[in-house]
Amino acid sequence: MTTAATCCDLILFGTLGDLARRKLLPALYQLEKAELLHQDSRIIGVARDAMSADDYRTRVRESLQQFVTKESIDEEVWQRFSAKLVYCAVDLADLEAYSALGDITDPTKRTPISYFATPPALFPIICDGLASVNLITAPARVVLEKPLGHNLISSRKINQHVGRYFDESQIYRIDHYLGKETVLNLLALRFANSIFSSHWDHSTIDHIQITAAEQVGVEGRWSYYDDAGQLRDMVQNHLLQVLSLIAMEPPTRLDADSIRDEKLKVLKSLRPITSQNVRDDTVRGQYTAGFVGDSKVPGYLDEDGAKSKSVTETFVALKVHIDNWRWSGVPFYIRTGKRMPQKRTEVVISFKPQPHNIFHETLSQLPPNKLIIRLQPDEGVEIQMMNKVPGLGKQMQLKPTTLDLSFYETFENKRIADAYERLLLEAIEGNQYLFVHREEVEHAWRYIDGILAAWSDTAESPKSYQAGTWGPVASVSLMAHDGRQWDDES
Amino acid sequence: MTTAATCCDLILFGTLGDLARRKLLPALYQLEKAELLHQDSRIIGVARDAMSADDYRTRVRESLQQFVTKESIDEEVWQRFSAKLVYCAVDLADLEAYSALGDITDPTKRTPISYFATPPALFPIICDGLASVNLITAPARVVLEKPLGHNLISSRKINQHVGRYFDESQIYRIDHYLGKETVLNLLALRFANSIFSSHWDHSTIDHIQITAAEQVGVEGRWSYYDDAGQLRDMVQNHLLQVLSLIAMEPPTRLDADSIRDEKLKVLKSLRPITSQNVRDDTVRGQYTAGFVGDSKVPGYLDEDGAKSKSVTETFVALKVHIDNWRWSGVPFYIRTGKRMPQKRTEVVISFKPQPHNIFHETLSQLPPNKLIIRLQPDEGVEIQMMNKVPGLGKQMQLKPTTLDLSFYETFENKRIADAYERLLLEAIEGNQYLFVHREEVEHAWRYIDGILAAWSDTAESPKSYQAGTWGPVASVSLMAHDGRQWDDES
Repeated sequence: MTTAATCCDLILFGTLGDLARRKLLPALYQLEKAELLHQDSRIIGVARDAMSADDYRTRVRESLQQFVTKESIDEEVWQRFSAKLVYCAVDLADLEAYSALGDITDPTKRTPISYFATPPALFPIICDGLASVNLITAPARVVLEKPLGHNLISSRKINQHVGRYFDESQIYRIDHYLGKETVLNLLALRFANSIFSSHWDHSTIDHIQITAAEQVGVEGRWSYYDDAGQLRDMVQNHLLQVLSLIAMEPPTRLDADSIRDEKLKVLKSLRPITSQNVRDDTVRGQYTAGFVGDSKVPGYLDEDGAKSKSVTETFVALKVHIDNWRWSGVPFYIRTGKRMPQKRTEVVISFKPQPHNIFHETLSQLPPNKLIIRLQPDEGVEIQMMNKVPGLGKQMQLKPTTLDLSFYETFENKRIADAYERLLLEAIEGNQYLFVHREEVEHAWRYIDGILAAWSDTAESPKSYQAGTWGPVASVSLMAHDGRQWDDES
Repeated sequence: MTTAATCCDLILFGTLGDLARRKLLPALYQLEKAELLHQDSRIIGVARDAMSADDYRTRVRESLQQFVTKESIDEEVWQRFSAKLVYCAVDLADLEAYSALGDITDPTKRTPISYFATPPALFPIICDGLASVNLITAPARVVLEKPLGHNLISSRKINQHVGRYFDESQIYRIDHYLGKETVLNLLALRFANSIFSSHWDHSTIDHIQITAAEQVGVEGRWSYYDDAGQLRDMVQNHLLQVLSLIAMEPPTRLDADSIRDEKLKVLKSLRPITSQNVRDDTVRGQYTAGFVGDSKVPGYLDEDGAKSKSVTETFVALKVHIDNWRWSGVPFYIRTGKRMPQKRTEVVISFKPQPHNIFHETLSQLPPNKLIIRLQPDEGVEIQMMNKVPGLGKQMQLKPTTLDLSFYETFENKRIADAYERLLLEAIEGNQYLFVHREEVEHAWRYIDGILAAWSDTAESPKSYQAGTWGPVASVSLMAHDGRQWDDES
């Protein structure tokens, strides 16, 4: 039985918010169930409303019942878990109010780990508040939820402010994509298997596709979303992080510095998108009314709360070049959008086609091998290979066959932990390797800001696409122009 | 439904012998069952004894009942099959006697395909006999069973004699290893999948092992076996053929000339074993009494009919160097023996180890990837990879996992055809790509003769090993000397 070494006060700012209810509290419950929390650790929920400890526990229980899926709440675990729950009413905007938090904590007994599940605008005052009650000690840590800013300048401002109180080694910037089992499995596949690692480069890989398709629209948050758009919402953080893990040089060690240095080098090698190449290498889209599944859905400009003139993109496709030795000539195609036909997040590593086909009598074109890393809806890793169909016959019959490399089945159907479970545990354990360094955030913003500026320069509107389709036809053309196609087209 | 195009008289010389009974007739029955024989084709059994057609059918039926395994004889198929059976009594040593065969055949109606399932000493007279009754026409073919000679000189003699009657394009030299499903699957894996083909060479492959272990001893054929020995019996034909397929350059086309040319190039590139390197690169063994499974078995020199002074090897291990660009520095270790602990024939492609281990905290040594091609007892292809064990925890837990690449399961549990079914069908279809060219046989003999001569020069006796073990300890040392080990040692 593993027990977390750190006895901590996990202070959840924004404990009544969506993220805490949907993700953080269920994840902490699972860690309790797995006996991975120190028995004397506490979870201190912080929000503005006055509430009794029992009322808070009742609310947490309701959240668990709603969001712990595929199993019912274990009463014994709940007893242990609820005993750890503490509620503390604090008006986060009121510096004086933080004394309540000071009263119930003792950082010499329990390491304070603050989780900022609030809008970033509150980060500065929360830092001030924590400092005022001496909760920023040397071992203290802070976990920051995205979005970290709106562009390079605002992101820097947040990082600078938090950085005044916390050293970079104390700051855990969440990107929950990094907590996924399959992302870690990718590291194992890449770096523990010479059949993959020995030529993970332009010599065998033709191109890489990263797709993050959502079926949902803006879900009632039109104004918020309209300010951001798909590029900021998905590419700047998640997809550039995934790209970095796939593209990075093998790190020297499996520690935070080594891995984050290598990811940063990738981000620094991204060829900037400017007004010169923005037309060739990007596609912006905005959905119009259509059907997702069987449901008729309105267009982006007809959603509740929409302003009619918005040019915010709900879809983006990019051709990303990494200007380094490993990836010279190997484009990374990124595509993400709302109101797509499926919910699907996956990476497709497309290997070079065979230079010559000796099976042409039975198969005029040999499909290239593909390694598929699927993050959503189900995690998994697959490889697509060609194989002989068993049997007699003068000519060899070949057939593409998909091979499961994730082996989750073979591990006795172990439950796959949610990303937040892993990330919370790593934050508690003080291991930063799955968190994003400030420099990564800023280099990602630099790249994204360039695209936004180039779009703005062109003064073109996003191309429309019908809800329930794979984005504007220009996205297909982006690939077709290179003689390639998105994985779902074939 | 596929139907063989060729209407033929398949003339089985030696139809009452072991090979015909165990392998050829059951294989022909399966081809009939799969409706792959032309409806007007016939199977003409030839042996010395006078016998009625009905008696012959009864004998064939008995063979099928004994050697068609895992299923019972289908009466409807048997009706069709037995209708094709013809018996012809011929004393093969008597040239006059062949007229009986001439009387019942018409090569203008049915292509004569002669299968020489007899000792090679009879091949010349059978050729003479076939010629005397005009059964060697342009479309006629001949299938030759091993052993084709005892050394380069005797092999040449056989090939020259048969070559006087048949053109090389009419001669089908059987090596049943080439008919195995898995051997063909290897071609598909190698040449239809760029993840394997792109670096199938010294850059990613560390070494290759070929093991052909038998549990049986000499099975009452001591004198015959003692004349040959394990090197001639297994390495000269089967194992050098398998080695050639694995090591060959990608053929330009999937036809006989292209494939056989490439295999020949491999055989020509084998670094000769001479008295200089014979001590370093070979191990000879001879079994002594021991236990195989639970049975006590006698030593080789105590088998029935044994001569006490024999130095014939019942085990051989070789370190084979292929002196070409692709395989420079990549040894092929071959090992074969009688009275081993298991019946097992397999090829292990051992990839280079990872140059650096970033998982050393949880795994001090990363096992290298292995591709395993198993020919016996069950056919199959597997790859051994490292994978992350799903679950939380600060340090990544890795685990070696075996992946089935043969996919036989996914193809609806199709029955895997016996090698002889495939080879008989290919011979009937007139496709030579799975048969051995004369030059291959002769280059293989040249290599083998060199080893035998070098052994003879050293005047050493084979090293003894106890029955039921993996050969002399020197076989382990052969690998250990290179810092490697046989696959079953790990």
